[in-house]
Parts: sequence; structure tokens; C-alpha cells
Amino acid sequence: MGSLRIGIVGCGVVGTGTVRLLIENREILRKKTGIDFELVKVADLDWNREREFEVPKELRTRNWEEVVDFSDVVVELVGGRDFAKKLIMNSLESGKHVVTANKHLLALEGEEIFLKAQEKGLRVGFEASVGGGIPVIKALREGLVSNRIRTIYGILNGTTNYILTRMFEENLSFDRALAEAKEKGYAEADPTLDIDGWDAAHKINILASLAFGKYFPFEKVKVEGIRDLDRLDVELGKELGYTLKLLAIAKRFDGEVEIRVHPTFIHSEEALAKVSGVYNAVMIEGDFVGNTMYYGKGAGSLPTASAVVSDIVDIGRAVASGNGGEITPIDWESEPVTVRENFYSRYYLRFSVPDRPGVLASISRVLADFNISIAAVLQKEMVCEIAGVKNEPVVPLVILTHKAYERDIQKALSRIEDLPVVAGKPVVIRVEEEAE
Amino acid sequence: MGSLRIGIVGCGVVGTGTVRLLIENREILRKKTGIDFELVKVADLDWNREREFEVPKELRTRNWEEVVDFSDVVVELVGGRDFAKKLIMNSLESGKHVVTANKHLLALEGEEIFLKAQEKGLRVGFEASVGGGIPVIKALREGLVSNRIRTIYGILNGTTNYILTRMFEENLSFDRALAEAKEKGYAEADPTLDIDGWDAAHKINILASLAFGKYFPFEKVKVEGIRDLDRLDVELGKELGYTLKLLAIAKRFDGEVEIRVHPTFIHSEEALAKVSGVYNAVMIEGDFVGNTMYYGKGAGSLPTASAVVSDIVDIGRAVASGNGGEITPIDWESEPVTVRENFYSRYYLRFSVPDRPGVLASISRVLADFNISIAAVLQKEMVCEIAGVKNEPVVPLVILTHKAYERDIQKALSRIEDLPVVAGKPVVIRVEEEAE
Repeated sequence: MGSLRIGIVGCGVVGTGTVRLLIENREILRKKTGIDFELVKVADLDWNREREFEVPKELRTRNWEEVVDFSDVVVELVGGRDFAKKLIMNSLESGKHVVTANKHLLALEGEEIFLKAQEKGLRVGFEASVGGGIPVIKALREGLVSNRIRTIYGILNGTTNYILTRMFEENLSFDRALAEAKEKGYAEADPTLDIDGWDAAHKINILASLAFGKYFPFEKVKVEGIRDLDRLDVELGKELGYTLKLLAIAKRFDGEVEIRVHPTFIHSEEALAKVSGVYNAVMIEGDFVGNTMYYGKGAGSLPTASAVVSDIVDIGRAVASGNGGEITPIDWESEPVTVRENFYSRYYLRFSVPDRPGVLASISRVLADFNISIAAVLQKEMVCEIAGVKNEPVVPLVILTHKAYERDIQKALSRIEDLPVVAGKPVVIRVEEEAE
Repeated sequence: MGSLRIGIVGCGVVGTGTVRLLIENREILRKKTGIDFELVKVADLDWNREREFEVPKELRTRNWEEVVDFSDVVVELVGGRDFAKKLIMNSLESGKHVVTANKHLLALEGEEIFLKAQEKGLRVGFEASVGGGIPVIKALREGLVSNRIRTIYGILNGTTNYILTRMFEENLSFDRALAEAKEKGYAEADPTLDIDGWDAAHKINILASLAFGKYFPFEKVKVEGIRDLDRLDVELGKELGYTLKLLAIAKRFDGEVEIRVHPTFIHSEEALAKVSGVYNAVMIEGDFVGNTMYYGKGAGSLPTASAVVSDIVDIGRAVASGNGGEITPIDWESEPVTVRENFYSRYYLRFSVPDRPGVLASISRVLADFNISIAAVLQKEMVCEIAGVKNEPVVPLVILTHKAYERDIQKALSRIEDLPVVAGKPVVIRVEEEAE
């Protein structure tokens, strides 16, 4: 029977869960794999803080280099960029496999890390970086390997999905729903990375790389968060049969891809629309398999530990079979692929207008000038909460468009914004259909 | 670059899809894996029938032994038991890896096949045997490897799920919905394997083996189909907030497991309840990961081909890294595990009774005698469609129980059946709650 020595650097929430899993399930892992996964060292700077599981004293250290020295696999769970990168590069240089949950680092500097691993014939496992315990990285790289992946739609951030679920179900305002998420421990004190879409953007960038076989510069990912959402749009969308989600989207066209994160209306009957609260789900469409979906807890100590250890097991199995290297380089695509910024989508547009004749005509004229075709119009007999033009009350006018180019929409909107009958900035929310 | 020669025996719907995938996506497979997957032979007895994709003439043969001779991996897609087994055993004896979609054979004779593969240091891939293109076998064996699996709930048969969806949504009778499924090509001319639950039972037996690490005799699986379902129960369940699904269930207790397939009421708000039409979904609960769900097309030419080829790629990667054997024996559990037949569940019971005082009292007395506790009662002011006692009209009386033992329920029901106030056989449908 083989054995593998595991060291962990960073004993926060996920680190503690991983320690617990490796100790409590060591025997079952041995039975399932024939390999003994032995936790040898855990580094953290603070051994006094409260943890949900007590790390055995003899495993504790404050010295990360000790972890690298004594392990076959180094698990990086410190998060952040600079030190995490130093730790990973140092581990690879020392001939150690690496497992990490650090989506932030991988989305920004994955290429350098994976190239180093390849050069050294080592593995970098990162299942825990996307979707918590859901084995979605494995599904993309292995289970669906025989497919050309066309689209990925993901609800990849539990904090924002919780907030949007509460806004949708209880008609709460964004601020109210965020406060609730904080109370329940679903949002951090500084929730910027989550609510402004960065966390989901890191994750979709990683999935897009795997699906399309290229490293895509993170700056090219379009990111829009949920901070400015008005519950009025959640409500109007609901009436039209749509549910509002923060979707992370990656699509492949011939030589181009789209990678974007933004609030998105999807049909309320679609599977992704039913994913509520802190759950995550990823819909992946391949040319042969069609649509498949992966669903589970996208964060949390124990689910994330489950993914970390699945990577450790993969490494253990590869080492036991005499081959430690990556199953496949990530940038397998030899054709050029660029990120398309001018994407093509349906749109929900909401204007605040006075309830007078001619308003719809002037707005729709501008849309027509930009070749934007209208699919549906909804004008409500309700007075908007925002200030009116010249103190005349305004009502919401919603236009759903057929597919149009983002750039045309933006140009049309800036023209419409200047119309005297339109009060304030129009609201733009993209609309996606599952199968097009 | 390595290469792997693939041969297929059986060129029906799935075989044709697999040929097409291996030809159309050969280049992308090579890019993703660095391995050339070369389709060398396809055997079938009838090369004149209409196929959705034309198999190149030079690949065709009528001789299965030629396929075994010329291939590194033999793909068995003939189905059925006797010849399929002979083909697989012969391939393994000849030192060839095997990929199969044959759930029927694996559920009944998997042990012999896997032991032979282990003895020979070869792989038998069977991702396509459960859930079509959904990589659920891989999720269980690899993605969730670090977990003790507690429960698996699956909608594993698309034909029955289509029928139940139509009964639920349109209040169709079983016969009407089956006729519709046949028209649409979702049900075969002889739908017995599907509608009587055998297909789902084969699949859950395979998943239970993987999850709990033992081969379980197929005769021990409790199987009940949907043929006798009355739409009245679908409707009454709906009123109570439940959706009726043919669930395949596997649960682990200490030294025991339950493996069963039967019509099951689940809360209409649960994720599985929303899986409609011919889609499949599997919910897997692990001790660390919690609930995860896998969803997609559970059958069909191209999705199943996707799974077949993912197995071929796994074999190619293993061979390229110098190790061809199984990642882990299937029967990894060294503790004894037996199949528990007297399971423990909630129940929906429907009695046809005259609308008279005292009826509920006599039925509930019998239930109390068997320690079965009542959670809810629903008596409808409607006249049943079935014949009444002594020509007195009967009404449906529904009792939802708390958890009880199957054996006690059966005994209580046979006593209740003998009560003079009860007309006909009571209807029994089990009720499952996702998280208990």
C-alpha cells in the first residue's frame, strides 16, 4: 500500500474542515483507494483562535517552510495573492504537488503556476476553487472531455444568490437582503468581492480556461455586480416570467469567447432559476451531451474540504500508478481564441417616463435606429420611487428586446437618456435563454 | 503522442452516436489529451438499416472477434446478457480494456466481470450505464471520494419521468401518458423494463455498489413500477404539496443498506421535484459535501456516446501514464454490509371508504396497534372512480403517516383491508424528505 504525506498551510475555516476530514475519514480513504493519506503538518500563525475542530498539537506549526519540507502534497489555504503565490511556487520548485482553493490567484496568475507545474511534472489540484464541494472541474476536464463545450452558465457565488433569492421571494430591497445575509454569516463584513461580482468572475475565468483550452486575461472578463439593483426590476421581471440571478457566463463561438458576470434574467421555469439561497449550480452545454447541471453547496468548511481532499486523492492515485504529472495541460487549444467584448444578448430595459402620449414612440425610434428590435413592452400604472422630471410623476416603462449587440444597446441608451421625456439613467439587465 | 485503438460491437442508436463522436471530435480529443483515439472497427450484424450517421465502409464488419483482435479498447453496445457477457469476458481474457453501457448485465453479473478485469489489470468503464451523459459514476468514485456516502436519490429513468410529469402537469391517466410517450419515441413498444422499474433498479444497484463498496445481489433490490398508479393519487399528493416521482433510493446505515425503486412523493419545492420530462437527476449526500445534484439527459444517442467516450479517454490517459488497471476495486468495504428489507419511511395511504361516522376511528385504531403514527389526514368530498361497497358510494381518505416500518405498514394494511368499511385495496405510496 502506498502512502502520501499531506501538509496544510492556512488553518482557517476551510483548513480546519480539511484537517477534520483527513483525520475522520482517513480509514475510509484508505479502503477506497488503497493509499494511506497521512496529515503530517498544519501551519498557521495563530493557534489560539477558536476552531470548530481541534487540530492535534503535534501537527501544528507556525512555519510554512516546515510544511513544504515534510509533505508530498502542499495544500494552500491561506488565500490572497502574494504569499499564496510564493508558497505555491516554492512548493513546486521543491518538487511538491499542490492543492489550492484560491480562485483569486488562479484567475489572475494561473498560467505561471500551471506552467511551472508542467515543467516540474507535478499536479496543481484546484477543484475547491469553483463551486465548493461540487466536482465541476472534474466534470469539465474528464466527464465531459469528449465534448466541445459551447456554454457554461453558473450561479457561482452563494452570498449574492442568497441576496437575490430574498429579494425575489420576499420583495426585500438589496440593502435589507444584504443585512440579513450578514446576520446569517452568509456575507462577510466587507462583501465587495462577492456582491460586486469579482468572486464569480474569478471562477468563470477558471472554468472558461478549462472549457476552451486557453488562459484568458482576467481584465477581459466583463464584471457587473448586484449592488445597484432595484427591487422594482426584480418584481417587474417576475411578472414577465423571469427570475433575476447573478450569472457567470462563458460561451464559445468560432474563434471567440464571451466571459461575463452580471445580473441576468432567466425564465423562472429553468432549472437554474430554482437554485435558491446559498446553493451554487453550473449548467454546462456540450455538443454531444447537451445540457448537464451540477448543484450543491458552493462554499463552507466541510463541502470545500471535500473538494480539497478529492484533489489529494487524485494525486495519490496518480503517484501510486507511477505518474505524478497533470492529466492534460490547461491550454490545449492550438487555434487562436480571443475574448469578444461586444456580446450579443437579449435585454430588459427600464425607463422612467411621464405617463404621456408619444413617449414610447420616441424611445422605440431610437432603438430602431440602432437595429434593436422590440419583443415586448410593459408599462405599469404605478408611480416610480425615483424623482420625476420637473416634478411630474413618472412610471416605469419596460422594453424587452430581441437579440442585439451590447455596443448598440449602450449607444442607443445614451441617446435615449438625453431625451427630455426620460428621467434618470435607464436600467439595463441582460436576458439569457437556456437553449437557443 | 500515444494512440489508442477503439473497436465497437453493436451499432444501434448509442453505437452510431459513439462512431460519430469518435470521428467528429477526434481532433479535439487529441488536443485535449495528447492521445490519438483511433476508431478501427465497428461490428454489427445488419449494415443495411437506416442510421443517423454513416459508418465509413472500411470500419464495418460483421465479426465481433475481429473487433477484439484489432482494438486496445472494446466497446460493448449490444445490450442484453448472454452475448454481451461472452464478448466482455473474451475481451478481458484477450487483454483488452472494456467500455460498456450495459446496466442490466452489470447489475446482475458485475462482480464476475470486475473481478476478471482486476485479475487482468484492465479497466471496465461503465459511465454510460447510469444517467446517460451525466458523469455521475465519476462523481461518486472520484469527485466525492473523500465522503462517506449516506444517501442517493435518483430519477434514473427518463421514460417513467416523462409519464409522471405528464400525469402531474396535465392530470393525464397513466395509459394516456404512456401512449403519448410512445408517440414521442420516449417509450419502447414493450416498455416493461422502464415502467416496471427494472431499468432504474439496475442503475441504483450499480450506484449503491460504488457508494457503499460492496456488490449487492440484485434480487434484494425492492422494485415497484408505475403501471398501477392512479391519477387521483398524483392529484391528491399535489394538493398536499408533493410531487410523485419514480425514485431510485440507496441509503447507508451502520452495517446495512436500503436499495429500492418505487413511486415516491417528494416535496414539490425540492430540486428533484423540478426535474421534468425525460431528464434524469441524481442527488448524492456525503458526510462532508452535504447534498450535491447531477442533472442531464439520461438517455439518447449523443449523450450516452459522450459518457462512453469519457471512459475511453480515462483508459487512454491511464495507459499513457503506464498504468492500465482499475483506479480502485469496487468492493472496497471490508465491513459486512447487508441489504435491509424492512425499511423505515413515511407513507401516504389512501383508502376508499363510505362517507360515514366511525370509519376514521376504525382505521386509525389499527394503525395505532402497529405503532404507526398519523401526521395528516385528508378526506375529500369527491366520489371515487372505483366501485363502492354494496353500491354505497365511496370517498378517498388519505392518511400521511410519520415514519414507520414497511413491515408494520403491510401488516396494518392487510388488517385494514379486511375492515367492512374499506373498499378495495388501499393505495400505498412512500414519502421521502430530502434532509432528515
